[in-house]
Amino acid sequence: MSREKIYLFDTTLRDGQQTAGVDFSVEDKIAIAGMLDKFGIDYVEGGYPGANPTDTAFFEQNRMKKASFVAFGMTKRAGVSASNDPGLSSLVQSNSDAVCFVAKSWDYHVDVALGISNEENLECIRSSVERTVAAGKEAMVDCEHFFDGYKANSEYALACAKTALDAGARWVVLCDTNGGTQTEEVREIVTAVIAAGIPGDQLGIHAHNDTGLAVANTLAAVEAGARQIQGTLNGIGERCGNANLVVLIPNLVLKPRWNKRFCTSIDEEKLTELTRLSHAFDELLNRSPDPQMPYVGASSFATKAGIHASALMKDPKTYEHVEPESVGNTRKVMVSDQGGKSNFINELTRRGIKVSKSSPKLDTLIAIVKEHEASGYAYEAADASFELLARRTLGTLPQFFKVESFRVMVERRFDANGVLKTISEAIVRVEIDGERHISVAEGHGPVNALDIALRKDLGKFQQEIEDLELCDYKVRILNGGTEAITRVLIESRDDSGERWWTVGVSDNIIDASFQALMDSINYKLIKNRTSIEELSSS
Amino acid sequence: MSREKIYLFDTTLRDGQQTAGVDFSVEDKIAIAGMLDKFGIDYVEGGYPGANPTDTAFFEQNRMKKASFVAFGMTKRAGVSASNDPGLSSLVQSNSDAVCFVAKSWDYHVDVALGISNEENLECIRSSVERTVAAGKEAMVDCEHFFDGYKANSEYALACAKTALDAGARWVVLCDTNGGTQTEEVREIVTAVIAAGIPGDQLGIHAHNDTGLAVANTLAAVEAGARQIQGTLNGIGERCGNANLVVLIPNLVLKPRWNKRFCTSIDEEKLTELTRLSHAFDELLNRSPDPQMPYVGASSFATKAGIHASALMKDPKTYEHVEPESVGNTRKVMVSDQGGKSNFINELTRRGIKVSKSSPKLDTLIAIVKEHEASGYAYEAADASFELLARRTLGTLPQFFKVESFRVMVERRFDANGVLKTISEAIVRVEIDGERHISVAEGHGPVNALDIALRKDLGKFQQEIEDLELCDYKVRILNGGTEAITRVLIESRDDSGERWWTVGVSDNIIDASFQALMDSINYKLIKNRTSIEELSSS
Repeated sequence: MSREKIYLFDTTLRDGQQTAGVDFSVEDKIAIAGMLDKFGIDYVEGGYPGANPTDTAFFEQNRMKKASFVAFGMTKRAGVSASNDPGLSSLVQSNSDAVCFVAKSWDYHVDVALGISNEENLECIRSSVERTVAAGKEAMVDCEHFFDGYKANSEYALACAKTALDAGARWVVLCDTNGGTQTEEVREIVTAVIAAGIPGDQLGIHAHNDTGLAVANTLAAVEAGARQIQGTLNGIGERCGNANLVVLIPNLVLKPRWNKRFCTSIDEEKLTELTRLSHAFDELLNRSPDPQMPYVGASSFATKAGIHASALMKDPKTYEHVEPESVGNTRKVMVSDQGGKSNFINELTRRGIKVSKSSPKLDTLIAIVKEHEASGYAYEAADASFELLARRTLGTLPQFFKVESFRVMVERRFDANGVLKTISEAIVRVEIDGERHISVAEGHGPVNALDIALRKDLGKFQQEIEDLELCDYKVRILNGGTEAITRVLIESRDDSGERWWTVGVSDNIIDASFQALMDSINYKLIKNRTSIEELSSS
Repeated sequence: MSREKIYLFDTTLRDGQQTAGVDFSVEDKIAIAGMLDKFGIDYVEGGYPGANPTDTAFFEQNRMKKASFVAFGMTKRAGVSASNDPGLSSLVQSNSDAVCFVAKSWDYHVDVALGISNEENLECIRSSVERTVAAGKEAMVDCEHFFDGYKANSEYALACAKTALDAGARWVVLCDTNGGTQTEEVREIVTAVIAAGIPGDQLGIHAHNDTGLAVANTLAAVEAGARQIQGTLNGIGERCGNANLVVLIPNLVLKPRWNKRFCTSIDEEKLTELTRLSHAFDELLNRSPDPQMPYVGASSFATKAGIHASALMKDPKTYEHVEPESVGNTRKVMVSDQGGKSNFINELTRRGIKVSKSSPKLDTLIAIVKEHEASGYAYEAADASFELLARRTLGTLPQFFKVESFRVMVERRFDANGVLKTISEAIVRVEIDGERHISVAEGHGPVNALDIALRKDLGKFQQEIEDLELCDYKVRILNGGTEAITRVLIESRDDSGERWWTVGVSDNIIDASFQALMDSINYKLIKNRTSIEELSSS
């Protein structure tokens, strides 16, 4: 049985632009569009040329190799002819392959927002589509607030959709603009729309997540006959976000419920790039990845071992709904005090550390990890610290340098001009190969000062750590009060693009930060050596 | 038409415990269970007494006023009688109102994980339920991996469910343990289960979010006839989380699709506490709230104004799917709007601060608050700081004392005996009524030292602050990296039993802590005066 194609339409660069805190530059848009094109998305909606300078600049060139480059905008204004409307001209004349018009399909909006008659609105839709088609481009129409519009006046909502198709639109997209429609309502309405004569293979669905149902609503529309789905990378979008393509695509590709009947431009091989795509997008926007995002999250395939009998562990199909590798993710059995010996060995092997199951050093390591985790260390969140601890305990970690002492000071006082200032200063004494180095640094705060001072003069290692960068810092107080245990997690990265987390625990926040900073530097130095060893053996 | 009740079952403290990075102490569990009980949740699953020390301690007392307190655990072990199984005894004898057993319902698991026959497994279910019912408690059974088990061997999966009910269980809960089931599959299977003789009003659904469908699957099960829904606060849970009750409850209460047919213990008035509950839970766990969480997120009702014609703005129903106030949230139009002023006046009145709507000082206060919140202050979490700011801006706050300067130092070095020590010391210079006081203190860490030094010698105010106690300290880094903005929240209390929160924001954690400490002391001093004024006027 031949499968029907579901078209993938990405609106990250258009609707996703509405996300609080997100602002794409032209360079961002070029990079992201390139990622989407390379991944295999069918339609990339780039923005609204003519409406703002960024988008106008972005549409000066069509860089898509396979994807259709879509310009978005409003239907022509009432009272102006299609050929004379400048907004419409910008859209049609841009370097897009297609134009997607947003049109009112709720009669109340036509009246109150546009102040025109229902009939005039249909004319705006009609002539905008006709002009686009005449210009040799694919036209599609987003019917705004369609589901609310249908509930209020189904005849009119349908008329908007029909008008678009009759005028030559390739697609009519039903938009749940305020995200409030429930899944069965979507199914019923899409079914009714198709029954009323709109062909399913010209119908798209554009869902929002305001009731937590964007993915479900999209799939329900597909099941009811729609064949284009709209969404964004990582579900960005205003308010609660758009439908998340990073979740929809693997559902369609991996679940028999869908892949028996449908296919997309993403095959199983391409799908293995999904996690990398999702993370690259977060990186570009400097957004913290959601560790719990379905399929691609860091925790998506992480189990706290001990819950499952070890017999089950041998067959992941018994507890995992899909193989993590199918989406480019990995299974994590969390290194915790619940972990058994085999888990530990797996974790160590994963990091290239070999140890025998019967080695007494392994027992020591397990005991140390359990003890540390009971006092607050979170090795599941700090891979690099775990690796250093393992190497140190198993005897394969050199001591690159030694910190003899440090002193951190924060002073707040009025300066000579009567201005209140806070100064943070750190002094660090380091010993490398018998030589003592003393450094001082100022910083935004005590931890920043300590970080700078620590990395200011590491003698023969100084060049190696030049590209080391701290990119995130988290603090958690584990018991209440100012006398509590503090856990600090630091994320670091270097020019290779690798990122790693380190941890420190103490009742003193500076001390905890110091531990995490030390592990960060030591991990950087050890990972350089692993690479060097590999290079010299090739 | 009378509506059917949907029972709300919260597993935050049990399944939610599996979340990476989440570790509930007994105090945490008591606090959270109290929140859930107060909000109106029907069942609060507290954990697994007998399996770990925290849960055993938690179940030593049943503190629920309305909710049913549920103990979770495994069915009895095969080969041991129900009366002799110590795990089962711990569950039945704990101070719970009900016991929820997790049972295998996938024959493959019965074989490989338990190594017993299908019939033996049914006997384990039967006798565990019977013993519980005989002990006068409500029994329910979570059928683990039910949907995969049903697909593999529907007869056996049903047999497990039937056995539980026949033995006297109040509920059988169908669990999508690996989160992979698609929505229509859930609907079809729940329908089939009910058709096979399991009454819908004894059926529950326990969904996970591994394919982004936990909320949808839960609602589909309800639509198919299930009448108990399981989930967690803010959707925490292992891997991609459990079904999010914070999204499910408002869907059920506010959407006609549901509220016409169903009711829950949460009425419209209680629902307005939802946002506060969600945020309080995040605060307690020191988790960053998800600004895009449906209904309760900071961005959930935030629109970038300019998208909508101003005529539409007057009628939010045209673009908002529900009123934000219905869930205790607020509409944010990311441009200033006049509606904000009345909110402010309400907040001030709530604290006993009277101000006229036309007062220019009110405008100043509003401007300051907006500016502060944009830079990281969270006044919704720090009542006392807000009140102090209001009193100061409106001109009714005396300056009790002035801190001229402070110096905080953390030093780590080897002492005379070669032992590595970390010392924290703070020096504070305070001026009271023209007199200078200088104090030094040591502490566990820099903030503890500063706190002690600040409160060591406040001259004529010293006696008043004797019963001031810091009881909680939270830190959040608002942007990544060690140069980020730090927000510190401190909770204080005194002998009157009153507790209050204060906030400080700075790129320097010591500075931020200092602000919060100062507000704490000043609030203590001002609240004493309010009491004195009240006393002297009575």
